Amino acid sequence: MPFSLKQLADFTDSRVKGEKALIIENVATLQDATNGQISFISNPKYKKHLKTTKASAVILTPELADNYDGNALINADPYLTFAKVVYAFHKPNDSISSVHPSAVISETAIIGNNVSIGANAVIEDGAQLADSVNIGSGCVIGKYCLLSSDVRLHANVTLYANTEIGARTIIHSGAVIGADGFGFAPQKDKGWYKILQIGNVIIESDVEIGASTTIDRAALGSTKICKGVKLDNQIQIAHNTEIGEHTVIAGGTVIAGSTTIGKRCQIAGAVAIAGHLQIHDSVIITGKTMVNKSIKKSGVYSSGITADENSKWRRNVARFKQLDELAKKIKNLEK
Amino acid sequence: MPFSLKQLADFTDSRVKGEKALIIENVATLQDATNGQISFISNPKYKKHLKTTKASAVILTPELADNYDGNALINADPYLTFAKVVYAFHKPNDSISSVHPSAVISETAIIGNNVSIGANAVIEDGAQLADSVNIGSGCVIGKYCLLSSDVRLHANVTLYANTEIGARTIIHSGAVIGADGFGFAPQKDKGWYKILQIGNVIIESDVEIGASTTIDRAALGSTKICKGVKLDNQIQIAHNTEIGEHTVIAGGTVIAGSTTIGKRCQIAGAVAIAGHLQIHDSVIITGKTMVNKSIKKSGVYSSGITADENSKWRRNVARFKQLDELAKKIKNLEK
Amino acid sequence: MPFSLKQLADFTDSRVKGEKALIIENVATLQDATNGQISFISNPKYKKHLKTTKASAVILTPELADNYDGNALINADPYLTFAKVVYAFHKPNDSISSVHPSAVISETAIIGNNVSIGANAVIEDGAQLADSVNIGSGCVIGKYCLLSSDVRLHANVTLYANTEIGARTIIHSGAVIGADGFGFAPQKDKGWYKILQIGNVIIESDVEIGASTTIDRAALGSTKICKGVKLDNQIQIAHNTEIGEHTVIAGGTVIAGSTTIGKRCQIAGAVAIAGHLQIHDSVIITGKTMVNKSIKKSGVYSSGITADENSKWRRNVARFKQLDELAKKIKNLEK
Repeated sequence: MPFSLKQLADFTDSRVKGEKALIIENVATLQDATNGQISFISNPKYKKHLKTTKASAVILTPELADNYDGNALINADPYLTFAKVVYAFHKPNDSISSVHPSAVISETAIIGNNVSIGANAVIEDGAQLADSVNIGSGCVIGKYCLLSSDVRLHANVTLYANTEIGARTIIHSGAVIGADGFGFAPQKDKGWYKILQIGNVIIESDVEIGASTTIDRAALGSTKICKGVKLDNQIQIAHNTEIGEHTVIAGGTVIAGSTTIGKRCQIAGAVAIAGHLQIHDSVIITGKTMVNKSIKKSGVYSSGITADENSKWRRNVARFKQLDELAKKIKNLEK
Repeated sequence: MPFSLKQLADFTDSRVKGEKALIIENVATLQDATNGQISFISNPKYKKHLKTTKASAVILTPELADNYDGNALINADPYLTFAKVVYAFHKPNDSISSVHPSAVISETAIIGNNVSIGANAVIEDGAQLADSVNIGSGCVIGKYCLLSSDVRLHANVTLYANTEIGARTIIHSGAVIGADGFGFAPQKDKGWYKILQIGNVIIESDVEIGASTTIDRAALGSTKICKGVKLDNQIQIAHNTEIGEHTVIAGGTVIAGSTTIGKRCQIAGAVAIAGHLQIHDSVIITGKTMVNKSIKKSGVYSSGITADENSKWRRNVARFKQLDELAKKIKNLEK
Repeated sequence: MPFSLKQLADFTDSRVKGEKALIIENVATLQDATNGQISFISNPKYKKHLKTTKASAVILTPELADNYDGNALINADPYLTFAKVVYAFHKPNDSISSVHPSAVISETAIIGNNVSIGANAVIEDGAQLADSVNIGSGCVIGKYCLLSSDVRLHANVTLYANTEIGARTIIHSGAVIGADGFGFAPQKDKGWYKILQIGNVIIESDVEIGASTTIDRAALGSTKICKGVKLDNQIQIAHNTEIGEHTVIAGGTVIAGSTTIGKRCQIAGAVAIAGHLQIHDSVIITGKTMVNKSIKKSGVYSSGITADENSKWRRNVARFKQLDELAKKIKNLEK
């Protein structure tokens, strides 16, 4: 459905510069946009494209607007404004709910109103799906899982028994929620003794969980993902860990067991966080960092070595292994 | 089913301190336990909770028992004792075996006694499932796979053709066993030529494999996971690799092809091990380590840089790139 | 089917040394080969096995052939020759195409000739499968996906709506293609606002994608995997990223959003590449490297610290945190 620039301004609390009645039909990047499309600029790195874009209108800050002659939607936060404009054009339709005849639903499952269940999905005994839940094809919902209203599972998600999921939470394909935590007790001269993992996973409302992310059930009690948390793909969260409200974590990050992450943290990709740690609220951790101690105050934390030409790296990494020795030599020289 | 403290002591080879007839109904952590529950203390870090716990009994070492007035189960290994107590209360029931009518089972598959097969599982031609095998919903068992007795696959596990799995092995959801190894031969001025991966994966008995872990089939011969190995989630094991008996590996670790890992190793999470290496028995590798050479004797091995404030890290990592030069300056100064 | 050594030489453009009529029945490694089998030597590391191998013939270079008395296939590229010989013995049969009755296929899907669809697979509305496509059991093909001829999906692959896949591309089990990119706009004093991901994923021809690898759909436009790319298992590729022709990437590597990787790159396992970067053609990146800047010329790039005994590492990593300070001390000493 097309909108006028004025309508988009109203929807996003923005100001129009130029033609209010201009009809916009869709969104696109500055580089790809054609006539009838609106684009945005948030990262100043892409400023050069403003001169050549064919977009009919651009979302930008008041500062950038001063130097832009075309039609514009002006807002101090062009990225959020863009997100809202995308939503205006592409909000999911109120699709008709339907339960595919091939889905296997236990007689003891409790299914709310307006629930959709895809082909070959399996809903086991005692599971409860509240109103407007949407289950993709091939999902398996274990016994006694509780899914609140408007939960959406994409295809091929697996929930182990007793998992609880809050309202409006979205889980992407391949994610596995509630598998056994990794707990074994060593036995002298024998193998490892499995510690039955009798806890569960509780995911609160408005969470999003990426493709192939795994969150293990607690040994005792619950592994907990608090409201508004956003997890990217291929993340591993071990048993009894807790992720605080509105924290975001990017792809490939691994968090060991019994660690507590604060609220509103931003954890980049490929990070590893050891077990039994506390990470304070509003901590930012950059990509590929290794965290082996608790972090007790907000701030930006990093580690790792960044890429260099291999020949240089080889020499430097060899020296790293002499670093303590080198430091002692410096001390001697200072004497 | 409730047990007396005396019964739990007998089951775990422990000693009762206090009331032998005390009835225990379940297990819980020191912090969460209420009346009728037993807890444990293994990590001294949590000793402070001993004073405030509401548990009716606690599993602890003789040393800790001296300073604890409540009812207790005394054992030199409280963690293993706890694991056995959890098992006593929560051992899986001898569930009635059942094959769901929606499961698709080839006529040439051979199915033992007491086998359970979940909804929409697929058992392909020539696969053999020994007695008491339990296959979760949505699993796909490829052609000619051999599953020994009491193997348990949770929902949505995929086994490629010819995979062999030993008795009592447990595989969690999303795991993929036997996909093609990553083998391609370069062709001058053309693309990569795929090397057909004609080997298989052999997993021995009493192994546990975590959610979304992938183990590739061998190019020739077998990729081999020996008995008692425990693998956490999201681990990648490449073709022709072998993991020795009772080795444990934590989440997110990547092991390249044709590497041999010894027995009783402990490899932490987010480790990367290069291909064609030998890792000796009883090697411990700490989290996020990068192993690019064989390790020829037992011991603890580590690498990586640990997290620091971003501003400090930036300065230090810049200096790392001058490290060889700095070392030469020190040498000059010494002259 | 057995071949004579002469037939294998013709098929691989190689030269026979020894008995042309020798009948070969299969391939094996130098160590495992028995009578009637052919082996190969490519990595000189394994040269010692030439003396003891029981293989009836060996594929090797002219140089190695001079010192080898047995029957041989001589080729400057023994690895590629071996790959072709494996193919000769093990090329997949032209299996009879079949659509399993349990597969759920939308009435509006368009299915070509000679297509195979496994048990419990789901083909959603408007999806198009060209001739000779092969879909494994349990796969879910989203709405309006386009699969070119001879595409092969192994069991339990998930394609989100609008994914496009080129001819002969192979995708392994557990892979998820087209899940939402990780895009959220921050809102002051509120949670994150989801940016609807309205783009798609385009995978060109002759690509191979490993088990449990995830490739996210673009926010706008397309995430693109160009022809001939080979991706190993457990790789994460974020939205709007592009991987150039014939690039290979090993297991566990994570690539953030809007990054462009050149052609014919070789990226090892457990690498992390930040977002919005350009990586030039023919760049080689070694295992576990962290790339946080664009790489503007071909070459080999590395980072990270390699494993050391834990006691030494502890001392050196402590010194790393003083590195900037140490460098300043050296400067002072030089004065």
